Amino acid sequence: MVPNLCAPVAFGAMTPEEFRAAGHELVDWIADFRESLEDRPVRANVEPGDVRAAIDTEPPQTPQPFAAVVADLDRVITSGAMMIQHPMNFGWFPANASLASVLGDIASSGLGTIGISWESSPALTELEEVMCDWLRQLTGLSPAWQGVINDTASTATLTALLVARERATQLGQNRDGLQAQAAPLVIYTTEQAHSSVAKAALLAGFGWHNLTMVSTDDAYQMDPRALADAMQADIDAGRQPCAVVANTGSTGVTAMDPVAEIVQVAAAHQAWVHVDAAMAGAAMILPECRHLWEGVEGADSVAWNPHKWFGTVFDCSVFYVRDVDLLNRVMSTNPSYLQSAADGSVTQYRDWGIPLGRRFRALKLWFHLRLDGVEAIQARLRRDLENAKWLEAEVHATGGGWDVVAPVPLQTVCIRYSPPGLTDGEVDSHTRGWVEALNTSGATFLSTAKLDDRWMVRVSIGVEGTERRHVAEVWTLLRQAAEG
Amino acid sequence: MVPNLCAPVAFGAMTPEEFRAAGHELVDWIADFRESLEDRPVRANVEPGDVRAAIDTEPPQTPQPFAAVVADLDRVITSGAMMIQHPMNFGWFPANASLASVLGDIASSGLGTIGISWESSPALTELEEVMCDWLRQLTGLSPAWQGVINDTASTATLTALLVARERATQLGQNRDGLQAQAAPLVIYTTEQAHSSVAKAALLAGFGWHNLTMVSTDDAYQMDPRALADAMQADIDAGRQPCAVVANTGSTGVTAMDPVAEIVQVAAAHQAWVHVDAAMAGAAMILPECRHLWEGVEGADSVAWNPHKWFGTVFDCSVFYVRDVDLLNRVMSTNPSYLQSAADGSVTQYRDWGIPLGRRFRALKLWFHLRLDGVEAIQARLRRDLENAKWLEAEVHATGGGWDVVAPVPLQTVCIRYSPPGLTDGEVDSHTRGWVEALNTSGATFLSTAKLDDRWMVRVSIGVEGTERRHVAEVWTLLRQAAEG
Repeated sequence: MVPNLCAPVAFGAMTPEEFRAAGHELVDWIADFRESLEDRPVRANVEPGDVRAAIDTEPPQTPQPFAAVVADLDRVITSGAMMIQHPMNFGWFPANASLASVLGDIASSGLGTIGISWESSPALTELEEVMCDWLRQLTGLSPAWQGVINDTASTATLTALLVARERATQLGQNRDGLQAQAAPLVIYTTEQAHSSVAKAALLAGFGWHNLTMVSTDDAYQMDPRALADAMQADIDAGRQPCAVVANTGSTGVTAMDPVAEIVQVAAAHQAWVHVDAAMAGAAMILPECRHLWEGVEGADSVAWNPHKWFGTVFDCSVFYVRDVDLLNRVMSTNPSYLQSAADGSVTQYRDWGIPLGRRFRALKLWFHLRLDGVEAIQARLRRDLENAKWLEAEVHATGGGWDVVAPVPLQTVCIRYSPPGLTDGEVDSHTRGWVEALNTSGATFLSTAKLDDRWMVRVSIGVEGTERRHVAEVWTLLRQAAEG
Repeated sequence: MVPNLCAPVAFGAMTPEEFRAAGHELVDWIADFRESLEDRPVRANVEPGDVRAAIDTEPPQTPQPFAAVVADLDRVITSGAMMIQHPMNFGWFPANASLASVLGDIASSGLGTIGISWESSPALTELEEVMCDWLRQLTGLSPAWQGVINDTASTATLTALLVARERATQLGQNRDGLQAQAAPLVIYTTEQAHSSVAKAALLAGFGWHNLTMVSTDDAYQMDPRALADAMQADIDAGRQPCAVVANTGSTGVTAMDPVAEIVQVAAAHQAWVHVDAAMAGAAMILPECRHLWEGVEGADSVAWNPHKWFGTVFDCSVFYVRDVDLLNRVMSTNPSYLQSAADGSVTQYRDWGIPLGRRFRALKLWFHLRLDGVEAIQARLRRDLENAKWLEAEVHATGGGWDVVAPVPLQTVCIRYSPPGLTDGEVDSHTRGWVEALNTSGATFLSTAKLDDRWMVRVSIGVEGTERRHVAEVWTLLRQAAEG
C-alpha cells in the first residue's frame, strides 16, 4: 500500500502555537491572581446555585475564544472560590500550593504522559521512587520504608485497612473474602481521628460495630492502656484485633497519639498499625519535632500529605509501608495487555494502590524541592510554629473569658471565648455566631469544630504567605468579633 | 496588642514574579515539546534504573536555578517516558491530553484551591455538576443520571461494587459489615473485563470464589443466558447475586456486552448493574454509536474516562449513578469541622467517592469543551473510526496469514500474522518477538494481549495527532516486521 500522504485533516483542536500564546496569557493571569490575593475576600460571597447559574447549561458546539474563557476565570471561578492561599486564611488546615510545585504540575499536564506500568513511563515510576525516598530521608524514616504517592490520606487509610484485613485473614480475598471470616475483625482509633478512618473501616467491610473508639487522655491522645483493655475484651468476646489507626496530629486539635506505646500493644496481637500524619507529617522535616511520632519505626504504614502544610500543590499524599510484598499481593493485577520485558525488575506502582492509571505527581515534588530548597521550607514551618506559640501566649495573657482549649504541639491554636454569665449552650451559640459573622465579612476565615461536645474555634496557621502581622491581625479581629 | 507590621520574613519560596518568568519559559518548553513529538522515538530507550541513576539521591538544601530544572525535563524525563501523544503511538488505548484541556489543568494548579466541601470552593463543586451534566447530555443519558469526576475507572468500579454491596445488605456497613453476611454475595463479569473489576471485587471483600466469570459469545460479549444460569445456580447454592459489571468496550478487544439483556437478567435478582465504558464511553458523543450501549438507562451506574480517547488530560473519569441518595449514604461523612450553613442545599462531592479532598478537575473539561468545541471532538473520533475501518479492510484484503481476530466496533483493530507452517505456540513467539522488535525501534508502539489464550496485536487508533498517513505507515511497518 502506498501511504496516504495528504495534508492533516483539520479537526480544530488547539495547536501548540495556539497553546503557546494562550499559555503565556494564563501564566500571567495566575501570577496576577497570586499577587492580588490579599485584596480579595477570603471566603467567596456566593449563595448555593450562584456559580451554576453563571455557566452555560449546554456545551458549545464550536470553539470559543480564549479571552472569553480566561475572563470567566475571574467572573465565575475566583469570585466563587475560597481563597485557600490568602494570608488571612486560617481555616481547616494549610493547603499550600507553592508556585515552584505548580510549575512541576504544569510540566506534568503538558507532557501528557500516563502511568499504568513502568513501561508506560519509566521516568514517572523512577522519579516517584526517588521523590518518596527524598521525603523519607527528610522525615527521618529508616530505609526499611518504601513509598508511593496517592491522591489523599483518605485513600491511604483505606489501603492500609485493606492490607491489614488481608494480613489478618491470610489473604482471604483469594478465597471467600471477608464474607467467610469467622471471628470478626476489629479496627481501633479515637474520636479525634479524621472522618476518613471510620469511612475506610466501613468501606473495607469491617462494619460500624467492629470499629472501636479508644478513649483519650487530657491531651486528646489515645490511651494505650485503654487500647490494650479494648483488645483483650474483644478477644475474650471472640473477636480479633486487626488494625489500629494512630494520629500524629489529629484533625481537630492536632493531638499526638503515643505511637511507641500503641505499637507495643498492637504487636501483642499482631495488629497492623497505620500512622495518619496527614497534616503533621510535614513537621517531621524538622528534627526538633520528630519526638512527636517516636516509635513510628514499629508501625506498618504511615501517610502524610505534602499537599498540606509542606506546600506541594494538591493532590500529593505519600504512603509508606515496610512490607511492600504484602501490599503488592493485596493490590496486584497483571493482565496480559500490561505485561512487558521489564516485569520483575521494576516497580509497578499499579500494585501499590487502588487506581491503575497515575498522574506524574512526582514532578511537582521534584520542582518544589529543587526550586525552593529544603531549608526554605523548614524555615517557613518554624516561622509558623513560632506564630502559633505567639498566639497561644496572647490568648493566655488576655484571659477574661479567652481560653486555649487544647495543647498546641504544632501550628493549630484551638480557642474559645466565654462571655461571663452564659451557659455552655449559650457560649456555643455565641461562638458559632461570631465566627460566621467574621467569615462572612471576608476579612479572614476560620473553622469551628466540636471538642468534648462544645464548639470551639480553630486558628490553623500555616499558609505560605501568612506572616506574624497576619496572625496579629486575626487576633485583633477575633477579639473584636467575639467581645464586641 | 499592636500588630507586628515588620516586613515579611524572607523564607525563599518562589514569588509570583519569579513564577511569571519561569512559567513563560515552561509554556514554551511544552509547546516545543508537543511540536517535536514526531521526531522522537515513541518508546523510551531506557533500561530499568537508568532514570533513577540520573536523579540526585538526596534532596537539595538550597534552591537550584530554574534553567537546571527545565533542562532536566529533556535530560531525564522526556528521554525516559513513553510518548503517549506521539501520532505513531498505537499502544494500550488513546490517552489524549488536548492542549485546551492542559490549559484548564494549569488554571486548576495555579488557583491552588481544594475541594473538601461546597464551602471550600463553590465554583469547584458547581462547575463539576455542570460539566458532568454537559457530558451526560453529550452521551445521550437521561436527566435521571447525576455525575462526579473520579481519578480513574478503577475507582469507579470499586465505588460501584461497594454501593452494590451495601444495597444488597441493607447498609450492613452500619452494623457488622460484610463479616456478618449470611448468604455470600456474588459479582459477575467476563474474562474480557478490565483487571480492575476483579481487583475491585477482592478489595470490596467479596472474595475470589464469589467472582463469577460469565461465558462470552463469538464476539467476546457476555452471554445473557449464561448470566441468568449462573445467577440461578448461585441462588440454588445459597448465594446471592449482588452486581454485574458489563463492558461497553472491553480492554482487550473493545467487546460490547449486551447491556439491555444484562439489565433484564439482573433486575430479576435485584442485582446492581455497573457499565464500564472507560475507553468507549467517548464514542457515545456520536449518536450513530449509541446503539452500542443500548439499555444503559436500566443500569445503576456508568463510568467512562474523558482522559482517554475524548482527550481531556489525565486524570478525569466520570461516574454516573441514578440513586445519588444511596451513594451518599454509603460514602457520607459529616464531621463537625466541615459543617457549614450551606449544608443540605448543596452537593457535597466528598460523599460521592473515596477521597475527601478533590482537585478542580472540572476546569479542564470546561476549557477543553469551550476551546475545541464539541464538533471538533466528534469529527476527530469519526476520523479514527474511519481509519480503523480502513486498516481492518487492508488486513482482510492482504490475507496471506494476516487476520483480524476480533470484531472492530470502534477504533481498536486486533490482528495476528501467522506465517505458514508454524504451530500456534510458534506463532505466539513470533508475534511477541516482532512486536517487541518494532517497539524497540522507536518507530511505533503497539501492545500485545492474549485472546483465547493466544497472543495478538492491538492497533489502538485514536491519538489526537494520528492521521490516515500514520495508520498507513504503521501498517507498512507491521508487514515489514512480521513478514520480513
